[in-house]
Amino acid sequence: VTRIACQQLAPRLGDLEHNTAMTVTAIRVAVDAGADVVVLPELASSGYMFTSTAEAAEAAIGRDHDLFRSWAEAAGDAVVVGGFCEIGDTPDTVYNSAVVVDRTGPLAFYRKTHLWDAENTVFTPGDDAPPVVETRAGRIGVCICYDLEFCEVTRSLALAGAELIAAPVNWPTVERPAGEHPPEVVIAMAAARTNKVAIACCDRDGIERGQDWTRGTTIIGSDGWVLATAGEGGLVVTDVDLTAARDKRISAHNDLHADRRPTLYQL
Amino acid sequence: VTRIACQQLAPRLGDLEHNTAMTVTAIRVAVDAGADVVVLPELASSGYMFTSTAEAAEAAIGRDHDLFRSWAEAAGDAVVVGGFCEIGDTPDTVYNSAVVVDRTGPLAFYRKTHLWDAENTVFTPGDDAPPVVETRAGRIGVCICYDLEFCEVTRSLALAGAELIAAPVNWPTVERPAGEHPPEVVIAMAAARTNKVAIACCDRDGIERGQDWTRGTTIIGSDGWVLATAGEGGLVVTDVDLTAARDKRISAHNDLHADRRPTLYQL
Repeated sequence: VTRIACQQLAPRLGDLEHNTAMTVTAIRVAVDAGADVVVLPELASSGYMFTSTAEAAEAAIGRDHDLFRSWAEAAGDAVVVGGFCEIGDTPDTVYNSAVVVDRTGPLAFYRKTHLWDAENTVFTPGDDAPPVVETRAGRIGVCICYDLEFCEVTRSLALAGAELIAAPVNWPTVERPAGEHPPEVVIAMAAARTNKVAIACCDRDGIERGQDWTRGTTIIGSDGWVLATAGEGGLVVTDVDLTAARDKRISAHNDLHADRRPTLYQL
Repeated sequence: VTRIACQQLAPRLGDLEHNTAMTVTAIRVAVDAGADVVVLPELASSGYMFTSTAEAAEAAIGRDHDLFRSWAEAAGDAVVVGGFCEIGDTPDTVYNSAVVVDRTGPLAFYRKTHLWDAENTVFTPGDDAPPVVETRAGRIGVCICYDLEFCEVTRSLALAGAELIAAPVNWPTVERPAGEHPPEVVIAMAAARTNKVAIACCDRDGIERGQDWTRGTTIIGSDGWVLATAGEGGLVVTDVDLTAARDKRISAHNDLHADRRPTLYQL
Protein backbone atom coordinates (compact mmCIF):
# COMPACT_ATOMS: atom_id res chain seq x y z
CA VAL A 1 0.00 0.00 0.00
CA THR A 2 0.91 3.63 -0.44
CA ARG A 3 0.50 6.18 2.34
CA ILE A 4 -1.13 9.35 1.07
CA ALA A 5 -1.03 12.54 3.12
CA CYS A 6 -2.76 15.85 2.51
CA GLN A 7 -1.72 18.94 4.45
CA GLN A 8 -4.63 21.36 4.71
CA LEU A 9 -2.76 24.62 5.29
CA ALA A 10 -3.54 28.33 5.54
CA PRO A 11 -1.05 30.25 3.41
CA ARG A 12 -0.58 33.96 4.04
CA LEU A 13 -1.47 36.01 0.99
CA GLY A 14 1.65 37.13 -0.82
CA ASP A 15 4.01 36.04 1.96
CA LEU A 16 6.38 33.64 0.20
CA GLU A 17 8.80 33.46 3.13
CA HIS A 18 6.10 32.42 5.57
CA ASN A 19 4.51 30.02 3.13
CA THR A 20 7.86 28.39 2.33
CA ALA A 21 8.55 27.70 5.99
CA MET A 22 5.00 26.50 6.55
CA THR A 23 5.00 24.10 3.60
CA VAL A 24 8.46 22.72 4.37
CA THR A 25 7.36 21.96 7.92
CA ALA A 26 4.14 20.43 6.64
CA ILE A 27 6.04 18.15 4.27
CA ARG A 28 8.41 17.07 7.07
CA VAL A 29 5.50 16.31 9.39
CA ALA A 30 3.81 14.23 6.73
CA VAL A 31 7.02 12.38 5.90
CA ASP A 32 7.53 11.68 9.60
CA ALA A 33 4.03 10.17 9.55
CA GLY A 34 5.24 7.75 6.89
CA ALA A 35 3.75 9.45 3.85
CA ASP A 36 4.78 8.22 0.41
CA VAL A 37 2.87 11.03 -1.27
CA VAL A 38 2.28 14.48 0.25
CA VAL A 39 -0.32 16.75 -1.34
CA LEU A 40 -0.42 20.49 -0.57
CA PRO A 41 -3.18 22.98 -1.42
CA GLU A 42 -3.57 25.04 -4.57
CA LEU A 43 -1.42 28.20 -4.53
CA ALA A 44 0.28 27.04 -1.33
CA SER A 45 3.20 29.38 -1.99
CA SER A 46 1.11 32.49 -2.30
CA GLY A 47 -2.48 32.30 -1.09
CA TYR A 48 -5.41 32.78 -3.40
CA MET A 49 -7.39 36.01 -3.10
CA PHE A 50 -5.44 38.21 -5.47
CA THR A 51 -7.40 41.05 -7.01
CA SER A 52 -5.14 41.62 -10.01
CA THR A 53 -2.47 40.02 -12.12
CA ALA A 54 0.01 42.63 -10.90
CA GLU A 55 -0.62 41.63 -7.29
CA ALA A 56 -0.28 37.94 -8.12
CA ALA A 57 2.90 38.61 -10.10
CA GLU A 58 4.48 40.09 -6.96
CA ALA A 59 4.07 36.71 -5.27
CA ALA A 60 4.84 34.56 -8.31
CA ILE A 61 8.00 32.49 -8.74
CA GLY A 62 9.80 30.79 -11.60
CA ARG A 63 10.43 27.08 -12.04
CA ASP A 64 14.02 27.45 -10.85
CA HIS A 65 13.02 29.00 -7.53
CA ASP A 66 14.56 27.75 -4.27
CA LEU A 67 11.11 26.79 -2.98
CA PHE A 68 11.27 23.57 -4.97
CA ARG A 69 14.74 22.77 -3.65
CA SER A 70 13.37 23.23 -0.12
CA TRP A 71 10.44 20.94 -0.87
CA ALA A 72 12.82 18.38 -2.44
CA GLU A 73 15.04 18.41 0.65
CA ALA A 74 12.04 17.93 2.92
CA ALA A 75 10.56 15.17 0.76
CA GLY A 76 12.92 12.38 1.85
CA ASP A 77 11.60 9.24 0.19
CA ALA A 78 8.21 10.82 -0.54
CA VAL A 79 6.75 12.58 -3.54
CA VAL A 80 5.26 16.04 -3.05
CA VAL A 81 2.47 17.54 -5.17
CA GLY A 82 1.68 21.15 -4.41
CA GLY A 83 0.25 24.30 -5.89
CA PHE A 84 2.19 27.50 -6.42
CA CYS A 85 1.89 30.86 -8.12
CA GLU A 86 4.04 30.80 -11.27
CA ILE A 87 5.42 33.77 -13.17
CA GLY A 88 5.44 33.46 -16.96
CA ASP A 89 7.68 35.04 -19.55
CA THR A 90 6.24 38.48 -18.94
CA PRO A 91 5.09 40.17 -15.72
CA ASP A 92 1.49 40.08 -16.88
CA THR A 93 1.53 36.31 -17.36
CA VAL A 94 0.87 34.49 -14.12
CA TYR A 95 -0.20 30.87 -13.82
CA ASN A 96 -2.03 28.91 -11.15
CA SER A 97 0.38 25.97 -11.24
CA ALA A 98 1.29 22.71 -9.55
CA VAL A 99 4.58 20.91 -9.27
CA VAL A 100 5.53 17.30 -8.58
CA VAL A 101 8.76 17.11 -6.56
CA ASP A 102 10.87 14.34 -5.14
CA ARG A 103 14.33 14.37 -3.55
CA THR A 104 15.86 14.89 -7.00
CA GLY A 105 13.86 18.09 -7.58
CA PRO A 106 10.85 18.89 -9.76
CA LEU A 107 9.60 15.99 -11.90
CA ALA A 108 6.82 17.89 -13.67
CA PHE A 109 4.97 21.18 -13.74
CA TYR A 110 1.35 21.86 -14.65
CA ARG A 111 -0.55 25.10 -15.27
CA LYS A 112 -4.25 25.01 -14.39
CA THR A 113 -6.30 24.79 -17.56
CA HIS A 114 -9.80 25.49 -16.20
CA LEU A 115 -9.86 28.73 -14.23
CA TRP A 116 -12.52 29.38 -11.62
CA ASP A 117 -14.44 32.66 -11.47
CA ALA A 118 -12.21 35.69 -10.75
CA GLU A 119 -9.09 33.61 -11.46
CA ASN A 120 -9.95 34.47 -15.04
CA THR A 121 -9.10 38.10 -14.28
CA VAL A 122 -5.78 37.25 -12.61
CA PHE A 123 -4.23 34.15 -14.19
CA THR A 124 -3.47 32.93 -17.69
CA PRO A 125 -4.86 29.43 -18.32
CA GLY A 126 -2.34 26.72 -19.15
CA ASP A 127 -2.29 25.20 -22.60
CA ASP A 128 -0.91 21.77 -21.76
CA ALA A 129 -3.02 18.85 -20.58
CA PRO A 130 -2.85 17.71 -16.97
CA PRO A 131 0.09 15.29 -16.76
CA VAL A 132 0.56 11.76 -15.49
CA VAL A 133 3.95 11.59 -13.82
CA GLU A 134 6.00 8.46 -13.17
CA THR A 135 7.19 8.74 -9.59
CA ARG A 136 8.81 6.53 -6.98
CA ALA A 137 5.35 6.26 -5.38
CA GLY A 138 3.51 5.32 -8.58
CA ARG A 139 1.94 7.03 -11.57
CA ILE A 140 0.44 10.28 -10.31
CA GLY A 141 -2.01 12.35 -12.32
CA VAL A 142 -2.17 16.02 -11.41
CA CYS A 143 -4.92 18.58 -11.82
CA ILE A 144 -6.02 21.64 -9.87
CA CYS A 145 -9.38 22.39 -8.24
CA TYR A 146 -11.96 23.34 -10.93
CA ASP A 147 -10.14 21.01 -13.39
CA LEU A 148 -11.60 18.14 -11.33
CA GLU A 149 -15.12 19.16 -12.27
CA PHE A 150 -14.49 18.28 -15.90
CA CYS A 151 -14.97 14.57 -16.19
CA GLU A 152 -12.84 14.70 -19.32
CA VAL A 153 -9.84 15.66 -17.18
CA THR A 154 -10.12 12.81 -14.70
CA ARG A 155 -11.02 10.38 -17.47
CA SER A 156 -8.01 11.46 -19.53
CA LEU A 157 -5.69 11.08 -16.54
CA ALA A 158 -7.07 7.62 -15.75
CA LEU A 159 -6.85 6.50 -19.38
CA ALA A 160 -3.23 7.67 -19.38
CA GLY A 161 -2.54 5.31 -16.50
CA ALA A 162 -2.81 7.43 -13.38
CA GLU A 163 -2.87 5.28 -10.24
CA LEU A 164 -3.57 8.32 -8.07
CA ILE A 165 -4.98 11.69 -9.01
CA ALA A 166 -3.49 14.34 -6.73
CA ALA A 167 -5.41 17.59 -6.78
CA PRO A 168 -4.34 20.72 -4.94
CA VAL A 169 -7.58 22.68 -4.40
CA ASN A 170 -8.96 25.82 -2.77
CA TRP A 171 -12.67 25.22 -2.35
CA PRO A 172 -14.61 28.35 -1.41
CA THR A 173 -17.47 27.47 0.91
CA VAL A 174 -20.79 26.76 -0.81
CA GLU A 175 -24.09 25.69 0.68
CA ARG A 176 -25.00 22.06 0.69
CA PRO A 177 -27.84 19.99 2.14
CA ALA A 178 -27.33 18.47 5.59
CA GLY A 179 -25.53 15.14 5.48
CA GLU A 180 -24.05 15.66 2.03
CA HIS A 181 -20.39 15.82 1.11
CA PRO A 182 -19.16 19.07 -0.42
CA PRO A 183 -20.22 19.08 -4.07
CA GLU A 184 -16.62 18.91 -5.25
CA VAL A 185 -16.19 15.71 -3.21
CA VAL A 186 -19.28 14.16 -4.81
CA ILE A 187 -17.77 14.92 -8.21
CA ALA A 188 -14.41 13.44 -7.20
CA MET A 189 -16.10 10.33 -5.77
CA ALA A 190 -17.85 9.76 -9.09
CA ALA A 191 -14.61 10.26 -11.00
CA ALA A 192 -12.81 7.81 -8.70
CA ARG A 193 -15.45 5.13 -8.99
CA THR A 194 -16.07 5.40 -12.72
CA ASN A 195 -12.33 5.27 -13.40
CA LYS A 196 -11.28 2.96 -10.56
CA VAL A 197 -8.61 5.40 -9.46
CA ALA A 198 -7.83 6.94 -6.07
CA ILE A 199 -8.13 10.72 -5.76
CA ALA A 200 -6.56 12.94 -3.10
CA CYS A 201 -7.95 16.50 -2.88
CA CYS A 202 -5.97 18.81 -0.60
CA ASP A 203 -8.06 21.83 0.37
CA ARG A 204 -6.88 24.82 2.41
CA ASP A 205 -7.57 26.33 5.78
CA GLY A 206 -7.88 29.88 7.09
CA ILE A 207 -9.91 32.89 6.02
CA GLU A 208 -8.40 35.19 3.41
CA ARG A 209 -9.78 38.65 2.60
CA GLY A 210 -13.10 37.50 4.01
CA GLN A 211 -13.21 34.29 1.98
CA ASP A 212 -13.81 31.13 3.97
CA TRP A 213 -12.93 27.68 2.64
CA THR A 214 -14.68 24.34 2.77
CA ARG A 215 -11.69 22.77 4.55
CA GLY A 216 -12.86 19.73 2.65
CA THR A 217 -9.63 17.79 2.17
CA THR A 218 -10.67 14.28 1.17
CA ILE A 219 -8.87 11.12 0.09
CA ILE A 220 -11.05 8.77 -1.97
CA GLY A 221 -10.35 5.13 -2.79
CA SER A 222 -10.58 3.55 -6.22
CA ASP A 223 -14.05 2.25 -5.27
CA GLY A 224 -15.25 5.84 -4.98
CA TRP A 225 -15.76 5.89 -1.23
CA VAL A 226 -14.19 8.38 1.14
CA LEU A 227 -11.20 7.00 3.04
CA ALA A 228 -10.31 10.08 5.07
CA THR A 229 -11.31 13.72 5.48
CA ALA A 230 -9.76 16.69 7.21
CA GLY A 231 -11.99 16.70 10.25
CA GLU A 232 -10.44 19.11 12.73
CA GLY A 233 -6.78 18.74 11.96
CA GLY A 234 -4.70 19.85 9.02
CA LEU A 235 -2.97 16.53 8.32
CA VAL A 236 -4.98 13.79 6.65
CA VAL A 237 -3.27 10.42 6.19
CA THR A 238 -4.53 7.15 4.82
CA ASP A 239 -3.15 4.05 3.15
CA VAL A 240 -4.35 3.32 -0.37
CA ASP A 241 -3.76 0.38 -2.68
CA LEU A 242 -2.78 2.27 -5.81
CA THR A 243 -2.22 -0.94 -7.79
CA ALA A 244 -6.00 -1.47 -7.92
CA ALA A 245 -6.13 1.20 -10.62
CA ARG A 246 -4.19 -1.02 -13.00
CA ASP A 247 -7.13 -3.36 -13.51
CA LYS A 248 -10.35 -1.65 -14.64
CA ARG A 249 -12.48 -4.80 -14.49
CA ILE A 250 -15.50 -4.46 -12.21
CA SER A 251 -17.49 -7.58 -13.09
CA ALA A 252 -17.01 -10.80 -15.00
CA HIS A 253 -17.97 -8.94 -18.18
CA ASN A 254 -17.08 -5.31 -17.53
CA ASP A 255 -14.00 -3.14 -17.74
CA LEU A 256 -14.64 0.53 -17.03
CA HIS A 257 -12.33 1.73 -19.77
CA ALA A 258 -12.76 -1.03 -22.36
CA ASP A 259 -16.54 -0.65 -22.08
CA ARG A 260 -16.38 2.90 -23.41
CA ARG A 261 -17.99 3.54 -26.81
CA PRO A 262 -16.02 6.57 -28.05
CA THR A 263 -17.67 6.61 -31.47
CA LEU A 264 -21.02 7.27 -29.77
CA TYR A 265 -19.88 10.28 -27.74
CA GLN A 266 -20.37 13.78 -29.11
CA LEU A 267 -17.82 15.68 -27.11
CA VAL B 1 -41.92 23.89 -13.39
CA THR B 2 -42.21 20.34 -14.65
CA ARG B 3 -43.52 17.53 -12.51
CA ILE B 4 -41.34 14.44 -12.79
CA ALA B 5 -42.59 11.06 -11.60
CA CYS B 6 -40.74 7.78 -11.32
CA GLN B 7 -42.64 4.55 -10.77
CA GLN B 8 -40.45 2.02 -9.00
CA LEU B 9 -42.14 -1.22 -10.05
CA ALA B 10 -41.57 -4.96 -9.75
CA PRO B 11 -42.10 -6.57 -13.15
CA ARG B 12 -42.72 -10.31 -13.33
CA LEU B 13 -40.04 -12.06 -15.34
CA GLY B 14 -41.31 -12.89 -18.81
CA ASP B 15 -44.93 -11.99 -18.02
CA LEU B 16 -45.77 -9.35 -20.62
CA GLU B 17 -49.48 -9.37 -19.85
CA HIS B 18 -48.96 -8.70 -16.16
CA ASN B 19 -46.28 -6.11 -16.82
CA THR B 20 -48.43 -4.30 -19.37
CA ALA B 21 -51.31 -3.95 -16.92
CA MET B 22 -48.94 -2.95 -14.13
CA THR B 23 -47.16 -0.27 -16.16
CA VAL B 24 -50.40 1.16 -17.60
CA THR B 25 -51.80 1.50 -14.09
CA ALA B 26 -48.54 3.03 -12.90
CA ILE B 27 -48.62 5.62 -15.69
CA ARG B 28 -52.24 6.49 -14.91
CA VAL B 29 -51.47 6.91 -11.21
CA ALA B 30 -48.54 9.20 -12.00
CA VAL B 31 -50.59 11.24 -14.46
CA ASP B 32 -53.35 11.57 -11.85
CA ALA B 33 -50.64 12.94 -9.55
CA GLY B 34 -50.00 15.65 -12.12
CA ALA B 35 -46.88 14.24 -13.70
CA ASP B 36 -45.60 15.85 -16.87
CA VAL B 37 -42.94 13.15 -17.27
CA VAL B 38 -43.29 9.54 -16.08
CA VAL B 39 -40.19 7.37 -15.91
CA LEU B 40 -40.46 3.58 -15.62
CA PRO B 41 -37.69 1.08 -14.82
CA GLU B 42 -35.33 -0.65 -17.21
CA LEU B 43 -36.91 -3.72 -18.84
CA ALA B 44 -40.30 -2.84 -17.32
CA SER B 45 -42.08 -5.00 -19.89
CA SER B 46 -40.14 -8.14 -19.14
CA GLY B 47 -38.12 -8.21 -15.96
CA TYR B 48 -34.36 -8.54 -15.95
CA MET B 49 -32.88 -11.84 -14.81
CA PHE B 50 -32.84 -13.73 -18.11
CA THR B 51 -30.24 -16.45 -18.36
CA SER B 52 -30.10 -16.64 -22.15
CA THR B 53 -30.93 -14.73 -25.29
CA ALA B 54 -33.52 -17.36 -26.16
CA GLU B 55 -35.34 -16.77 -22.89
CA ALA B 56 -35.22 -13.00 -23.35
CA ALA B 57 -36.43 -13.34 -26.93
CA GLU B 58 -39.57 -15.08 -25.64
CA ALA B 59 -40.42 -11.92 -23.73
CA ALA B 60 -39.21 -9.44 -26.34
CA ILE B 61 -41.48 -7.23 -28.44
CA GLY B 62 -41.15 -5.17 -31.60
CA ARG B 63 -41.49 -1.44 -31.96
CA ASP B 64 -45.04 -1.79 -33.31
CA HIS B 65 -46.30 -3.69 -30.29
CA ASP B 66 -49.57 -2.73 -28.60
CA LEU B 67 -47.72 -2.04 -25.35
CA PHE B 68 -46.72 1.38 -26.66
CA ARG B 69 -50.29 2.16 -27.73
CA SER B 70 -51.41 1.29 -24.20
CA TRP B 71 -48.73 3.54 -22.70
CA ALA B 72 -49.70 6.33 -25.13
CA GLU B 73 -53.34 6.07 -24.13
CA ALA B 74 -52.46 6.18 -20.45
CA ALA B 75 -50.07 9.11 -20.93
CA GLY B 76 -52.68 11.84 -21.28
CA ASP B 77 -50.72 15.11 -21.42
CA ALA B 78 -47.59 13.48 -20.01
CA VAL B 79 -44.49 11.99 -21.61
CA VAL B 80 -43.50 8.44 -20.66
CA VAL B 81 -39.94 7.08 -20.70
CA GLY B 82 -39.69 3.37 -19.99
CA GLY B 83 -37.52 0.35 -20.55
CA PHE B 84 -38.59 -2.72 -22.51
CA CYS B 85 -37.16 -5.89 -23.97
CA GLU B 86 -36.86 -5.44 -27.73
CA ILE B 87 -36.64 -8.13 -30.37
CA GLY B 88 -34.33 -7.41 -33.29
CA ASP B 89 -34.40 -8.64 -36.86
CA THR B 90 -33.53 -12.17 -35.85
CA PRO B 91 -34.59 -14.22 -32.81
CA ASP B 92 -31.06 -14.14 -31.44
CA THR B 93 -30.90 -10.35 -31.46
CA VAL B 94 -32.49 -8.90 -28.35
CA TYR B 95 -31.96 -5.37 -27.08
CA ASN B 96 -32.29 -3.77 -23.66
CA SER B 97 -34.22 -0.76 -24.95
CA ALA B 98 -36.10 2.33 -23.88
CA VAL B 99 -38.91 4.23 -25.54
CA VAL B 100 -40.23 7.78 -25.23
CA VAL B 101 -44.00 7.87 -25.66
CA ASP B 102 -46.64 10.56 -25.60
CA ARG B 103 -50.34 10.48 -26.52
CA THR B 104 -49.35 10.37 -30.20
CA GLY B 105 -47.32 7.17 -29.74
CA PRO B 106 -43.56 6.51 -29.63
CA LEU B 107 -41.35 9.55 -30.21
CA ALA B 108 -38.02 7.76 -30.03
CA PHE B 109 -36.41 4.42 -29.26
CA TYR B 110 -32.99 3.72 -27.79
CA ARG B 111 -31.01 0.51 -27.40
CA LYS B 112 -28.66 0.37 -24.40
CA THR B 113 -25.10 0.84 -25.57
CA HIS B 114 -23.18 -0.12 -22.39
CA LEU B 115 -24.25 -3.54 -21.15
CA TRP B 116 -23.79 -4.56 -17.53
CA ASP B 117 -22.27 -7.91 -16.56
CA ALA B 118 -24.36 -10.91 -17.70
CA GLU B 119 -26.41 -8.66 -19.99
CA ASN B 120 -23.47 -9.17 -22.31
CA THR B 121 -24.47 -12.84 -22.62
CA VAL B 122 -28.13 -12.03 -23.31
CA PHE B 123 -28.48 -8.74 -25.18
CA THR B 124 -26.93 -7.13 -28.24
CA PRO B 125 -25.57 -3.65 -27.52
CA GLY B 126 -27.12 -0.78 -29.46
CA ASP B 127 -25.06 1.08 -32.02
CA ASP B 128 -26.80 4.46 -31.87
CA ALA B 129 -25.97 7.16 -29.34
CA PRO B 130 -28.42 7.92 -26.53
CA PRO B 131 -30.93 10.42 -27.96
CA VAL B 132 -32.21 13.82 -26.91
CA VAL B 133 -35.91 13.94 -27.72
CA GLU B 134 -38.03 17.05 -28.17
CA THR B 135 -41.19 16.44 -26.18
CA ARG B 136 -44.18 18.44 -24.95
CA ALA B 137 -42.48 18.39 -21.51
CA GLY B 138 -39.08 19.60 -22.72
CA ARG B 139 -35.92 18.16 -24.25
CA ILE B 140 -35.42 14.75 -22.66
CA GLY B 141 -32.17 12.81 -22.92
CA VAL B 142 -32.47 9.06 -22.47
CA CYS B 143 -30.00 6.47 -21.34
CA ILE B 144 -30.23 3.19 -19.46
CA CYS B 145 -28.60 2.14 -16.17
CA TYR B 146 -24.88 1.40 -16.75
CA ASP B 147 -24.85 4.02 -19.54
CA LEU B 148 -25.10 6.61 -16.74
CA GLU B 149 -21.73 5.57 -15.37
CA PHE B 150 -19.99 6.84 -18.50
CA CYS B 151 -19.56 10.55 -18.04
CA GLU B 152 -19.26 10.82 -21.81
CA VAL B 153 -22.91 9.75 -22.12
CA THR B 154 -24.35 12.31 -19.73
CA ARG B 155 -22.00 14.99 -21.07
CA SER B 156 -23.02 14.23 -24.66
CA LEU B 157 -26.72 14.38 -23.75
CA ALA B 158 -26.26 17.69 -21.93
CA LEU B 159 -24.20 19.18 -24.76
CA ALA B 160 -26.98 18.14 -27.15
CA GLY B 161 -29.41 20.22 -25.10
CA ALA B 162 -31.07 17.79 -22.73
CA GLU B 163 -33.06 19.60 -20.03
CA LEU B 164 -33.75 16.33 -18.24
CA ILE B 165 -31.94 13.01 -18.42
CA ALA B 166 -34.45 10.20 -17.86
CA ALA B 167 -32.79 6.91 -17.02
CA PRO B 168 -34.66 3.64 -16.59
CA VAL B 169 -32.40 1.52 -14.36
CA ASN B 170 -32.23 -1.81 -12.55
CA TRP B 171 -29.62 -1.39 -9.85
CA PRO B 172 -28.58 -4.69 -8.22
CA THR B 173 -27.82 -4.13 -4.55
CA VAL B 174 -24.20 -3.37 -3.73
CA GLU B 175 -22.58 -2.57 -0.41
CA ARG B 176 -22.03 1.03 0.53
CA PRO B 177 -20.77 2.81 3.64
CA ALA B 178 -23.38 3.99 6.14
CA GLY B 179 -24.84 7.37 5.27
CA GLU B 180 -23.83 7.27 1.62
CA HIS B 181 -26.10 7.32 -1.39
CA PRO B 182 -25.99 4.30 -3.67
CA PRO B 183 -22.88 4.63 -5.84
CA GLU B 184 -24.96 5.05 -8.99
CA VAL B 185 -26.67 8.03 -7.34
CA VAL B 186 -23.32 9.63 -6.49
CA ILE B 187 -22.36 9.28 -10.14
CA ALA B 188 -25.67 10.77 -11.31
CA MET B 189 -25.35 13.65 -8.83
CA ALA B 190 -21.93 14.49 -10.25
CA ALA B 191 -23.25 14.31 -13.81
CA ALA B 192 -26.18 16.56 -12.90
CA ARG B 193 -24.04 19.18 -11.20
CA THR B 194 -21.20 19.26 -13.72
CA ASN B 195 -23.71 19.58 -16.58
CA LYS B 196 -26.39 21.63 -14.80
CA VAL B 197 -29.07 19.19 -15.86
CA ALA B 198 -31.73 17.32 -13.89
CA ILE B 199 -31.56 13.53 -13.84
CA ALA B 200 -34.35 11.10 -12.99
CA CYS B 201 -33.29 7.52 -12.31
CA CYS B 202 -36.17 5.05 -12.01
CA ASP B 203 -35.05 1.87 -10.27
CA ARG B 204 -37.12 -1.26 -9.72
CA ASP B 205 -38.66 -3.16 -6.84
CA GLY B 206 -39.09 -6.83 -6.00
CA ILE B 207 -36.74 -9.77 -5.86
CA GLU B 208 -36.19 -11.72 -9.07
CA ARG B 209 -34.48 -15.11 -9.18
CA GLY B 210 -32.82 -14.24 -5.89
CA GLN B 211 -31.57 -10.85 -7.08
CA ASP B 212 -32.46 -7.93 -4.85
CA TRP B 213 -32.43 -4.34 -6.07
CA THR B 214 -31.28 -1.11 -4.54
CA ARG B 215 -34.78 0.39 -4.87
CA GLY B 216 -32.79 3.55 -5.29
CA THR B 217 -35.08 5.65 -7.50
CA THR B 218 -33.78 9.21 -7.25
CA ILE B 219 -34.62 12.52 -8.89
CA ILE B 220 -31.72 14.98 -8.89
CA GLY B 221 -31.89 18.71 -9.60
CA SER B 222 -29.63 20.63 -11.94
CA ASP B 223 -27.56 21.71 -8.91
CA GLY B 224 -26.68 18.07 -8.29
CA TRP B 225 -28.62 17.62 -5.07
CA VAL B 226 -31.23 14.95 -4.48
CA LEU B 227 -34.81 16.22 -4.72
CA ALA B 228 -36.65 12.98 -4.05
CA THR B 229 -36.00 9.29 -3.46
CA ALA B 230 -38.18 6.21 -3.40
CA GLY B 231 -38.32 5.79 0.33
CA GLU B 232 -41.01 3.22 1.04
CA GLY B 233 -43.41 3.82 -1.79
CA GLY B 234 -43.14 3.07 -5.48
CA LEU B 235 -44.18 6.49 -6.76
CA VAL B 236 -41.67 9.33 -6.53
CA VAL B 237 -42.84 12.77 -7.60
CA THR B 238 -41.13 16.13 -7.54
CA ASP B 239 -41.27 19.43 -9.39
CA VAL B 240 -38.16 20.47 -11.29
CA ASP B 241 -37.28 23.67 -13.15
CA LEU B 242 -36.02 22.14 -16.38
CA THR B 243 -35.32 25.54 -17.93
CA ALA B 244 -32.32 25.96 -15.60
CA ALA B 245 -30.44 23.58 -17.89
CA ARG B 246 -30.54 26.10 -20.73
CA ASP B 247 -28.00 28.38 -19.03
CA LYS B 248 -24.73 26.69 -18.07
CA ARG B 249 -23.26 29.72 -16.31
CA ILE B 250 -22.33 29.05 -12.69
CA SER B 251 -20.34 32.17 -11.80
CA ALA B 252 -19.63 35.58 -13.25
CA HIS B 253 -16.82 34.03 -15.29
CA ASN B 254 -17.79 30.38 -15.72
CA ASP B 255 -19.98 28.33 -18.03
CA LEU B 256 -19.81 24.59 -17.46
CA HIS B 257 -19.84 23.77 -21.15
CA ALA B 258 -18.00 26.77 -22.60
CA ASP B 259 -15.20 26.22 -20.04
CA ARG B 260 -14.38 22.83 -21.55
CA ARG B 261 -10.97 22.49 -23.25
CA PRO B 262 -11.62 19.67 -25.74
CA THR B 263 -8.19 19.92 -27.37
CA LEU B 264 -6.63 18.98 -24.02
CA TYR B 265 -8.67 15.82 -23.47
CA GLN B 266 -7.30 12.47 -24.58
CA LEU B 267 -10.48 10.46 -24.82
